[in-house]
Amino acid sequence: MPAVSQRSQSVPLSPFRKLIPLADRARAAGKHIYHLNIGQPDIETHPTAVAKFRKLPWQILDYSPSNGIDSYREALRDYYARFDVAVTADEIMITTGGSEAILFFLLACLDPGDEIIIPEPFYANYNGFAHMAGVNVVPITCTIEDGFRLPDPAEFARKITPHTRAIVITNPNNPTGACYSRAALEGLAHIVREHDLYLCADEVYREFSYDTELQSILQLPGLDEHAIIIDSVSKRYSATGARVGALVTRNLTVRESVDRYAKLRLSPPGLGQRLSEIMLQDDGAYLAEVKEDYTARRDTVFRRLQTMPGVYSYKPGGAFYCFARFPIADSEDFCRWLLEDFSHDGATVMLSPGPGFYATPGLGEDECRIAYVLKVDDLERAMDCLAAALEVYPGRIELAATAELGGHLSQ
Amino acid sequence: MPAVSQRSQSVPLSPFRKLIPLADRARAAGKHIYHLNIGQPDIETHPTAVAKFRKLPWQILDYSPSNGIDSYREALRDYYARFDVAVTADEIMITTGGSEAILFFLLACLDPGDEIIIPEPFYANYNGFAHMAGVNVVPITCTIEDGFRLPDPAEFARKITPHTRAIVITNPNNPTGACYSRAALEGLAHIVREHDLYLCADEVYREFSYDTELQSILQLPGLDEHAIIIDSVSKRYSATGARVGALVTRNLTVRESVDRYAKLRLSPPGLGQRLSEIMLQDDGAYLAEVKEDYTARRDTVFRRLQTMPGVYSYKPGGAFYCFARFPIADSEDFCRWLLEDFSHDGATVMLSPGPGFYATPGLGEDECRIAYVLKVDDLERAMDCLAAALEVYPGRIELAATAELGGHLSQ
Repeated sequence: MPAVSQRSQSVPLSPFRKLIPLADRARAAGKHIYHLNIGQPDIETHPTAVAKFRKLPWQILDYSPSNGIDSYREALRDYYARFDVAVTADEIMITTGGSEAILFFLLACLDPGDEIIIPEPFYANYNGFAHMAGVNVVPITCTIEDGFRLPDPAEFARKITPHTRAIVITNPNNPTGACYSRAALEGLAHIVREHDLYLCADEVYREFSYDTELQSILQLPGLDEHAIIIDSVSKRYSATGARVGALVTRNLTVRESVDRYAKLRLSPPGLGQRLSEIMLQDDGAYLAEVKEDYTARRDTVFRRLQTMPGVYSYKPGGAFYCFARFPIADSEDFCRWLLEDFSHDGATVMLSPGPGFYATPGLGEDECRIAYVLKVDDLERAMDCLAAALEVYPGRIELAATAELGGHLSQ
Repeated sequence: MPAVSQRSQSVPLSPFRKLIPLADRARAAGKHIYHLNIGQPDIETHPTAVAKFRKLPWQILDYSPSNGIDSYREALRDYYARFDVAVTADEIMITTGGSEAILFFLLACLDPGDEIIIPEPFYANYNGFAHMAGVNVVPITCTIEDGFRLPDPAEFARKITPHTRAIVITNPNNPTGACYSRAALEGLAHIVREHDLYLCADEVYREFSYDTELQSILQLPGLDEHAIIIDSVSKRYSATGARVGALVTRNLTVRESVDRYAKLRLSPPGLGQRLSEIMLQDDGAYLAEVKEDYTARRDTVFRRLQTMPGVYSYKPGGAFYCFARFPIADSEDFCRWLLEDFSHDGATVMLSPGPGFYATPGLGEDECRIAYVLKVDDLERAMDCLAAALEVYPGRIELAATAELGGHLSQ
């Protein structure tokens, strides 16, 4: 039998991959599972847009231009303008989900052996795309005590080597929910200009900033050659299956390089693009309602976590994740135990273990990511499960050890 | 300004990329262009399926499983059974177009520096995917005099080195239209078993075999660990924008390796998959009509080429391409001249120059690919243009030089 490739055997796996068969078994045994492990919202995809999409006249589902349908890119230009992001339609390249935009950025801007600096914890699939591109991830650690704020520019500067080509951030952040301030972004802007690096910001959660206005790196002056945005309609309109994202940059040379890869795969999905263009015509009512809904979900999870002894959480300002610290020593074991050995009123919760979001070994062992993608009532019941679980989990560590952190609860 | 990657600068470009701005200028100047350069058919996407798709009930466009929607894979299993290809739904992995299936095959089965043997001329984007995967393409030349038949197994064997990991074929072939016989495929099967290689067949044109029944490598015995099929709905249902393909193999280890990449990009397009599943319910009437249409188009192009002095063509048995030899010495110049300097009744034709389909330098200089993706009437007018052009093209070479080949016209 011919061997498979060596590289495929080292592709980093999802942080909760090992838990999936356990969840399947628990479900088969009749246990209800509150899925707080994945970013798949239960919110309806923009219903009036879907209704219009169903009636859209077309006869041939043909290749779109490799950089996306013109009218869709023009609509996106107008959308970004509402965020004070001035870009032309040409500066927007439509991709097959945000995933492809990340991969294209790495291939177009970095060579094998080059490095990207990413604040950790970070979206775990960055590891996989970096692996595909042969690029090394250099983490810079954010801490829960600090609400996962960006480290100071001087700390970033210390991570820079001759191989560093980019700083990559996610804002609002997955998995932490942190939203970065204008001042923090300006600090990064200074660094990338000084060291001639790219600054790539994954802004797919741009609509989910609950307490402050989103600060986009494309609003910063003097960054035209450096700034690259990754975007996606997946979260915005609860249309993760559309597989429509974008790479946005004012740097023409980068766009020309990305275009070589874009042309290879011919075109991004045509139906998803047509639906996305219609969803963009929203008058804001849908997004306002969704945001209100998520704000309530965020508040519910944060409030409930605050009442659980030994649990520490900052208040996440955006996205739909909360990265919390628990009175546990091995979050993979805790997540496994929740599925295999625990139930509360016939139900349990599925969380993502913390270590998968870190590149530095040993970090995140007492942390889990909670995706608050369920209705408030479901979240309340999920939090009931979690609270009950923490009372009986055999691996629970002494409260004394977390008492000091408990004092920071209100942040 | 930060530099772009070195690798992006060597991504192979499309054979007709340089012609696009010339075509744009010609169109702007009022010239009509018959596009015989691309595989974008003018056939309507399965209309009754599209009508059903519009009414399909769904509320959330969510991620599909990374290997595709279960019911769609089950429907595909039944579809393949109609071709005497026995596979389970688990042996089918849905991808984002055939393009992603090719890339996933290369990443999952080959390491950088490994080699694939491909009969040339071949689908030019293979060069690009091989480049992305760091894999070397070793061409084995098919000749027009031979109707682009596969070379003998002994010739394949001579191309095998310690780095060879796979033989990759396209059947029916793009760009030649050749359909491979059962005996030819069995010759390859013998080789890959003997040398423990993969045999990867791009069968996206499986429905477009006009004179013989398609022979799939998954029909061959003893090839379960070796055979991998690339498939796509793009051509079958005239839905190139759906971006829905598949990788099919009975080799579980290969599927597990592909799955690592598939999980990274989360899921293939959801709307395209739903449409594709409905299109598969076709009773055969649509495909029969499309095939009849293409047969007439094929016959038109072949008949007209036969009447052009100095032009040599075999009769293509499948796909929707004809790779013909012209009385020219520089097909890039000829294709450029057609757009820039020639018109006939206010129109011209756009073809793909031959060299872009070869990996061996110097081949294809007197060849062009004709994609017969237009209606018969349009093809007749396009052939009028081509015939008139060949009479006045300044770079035309003497008929004497091609007289011998002319004798093979009826093949």
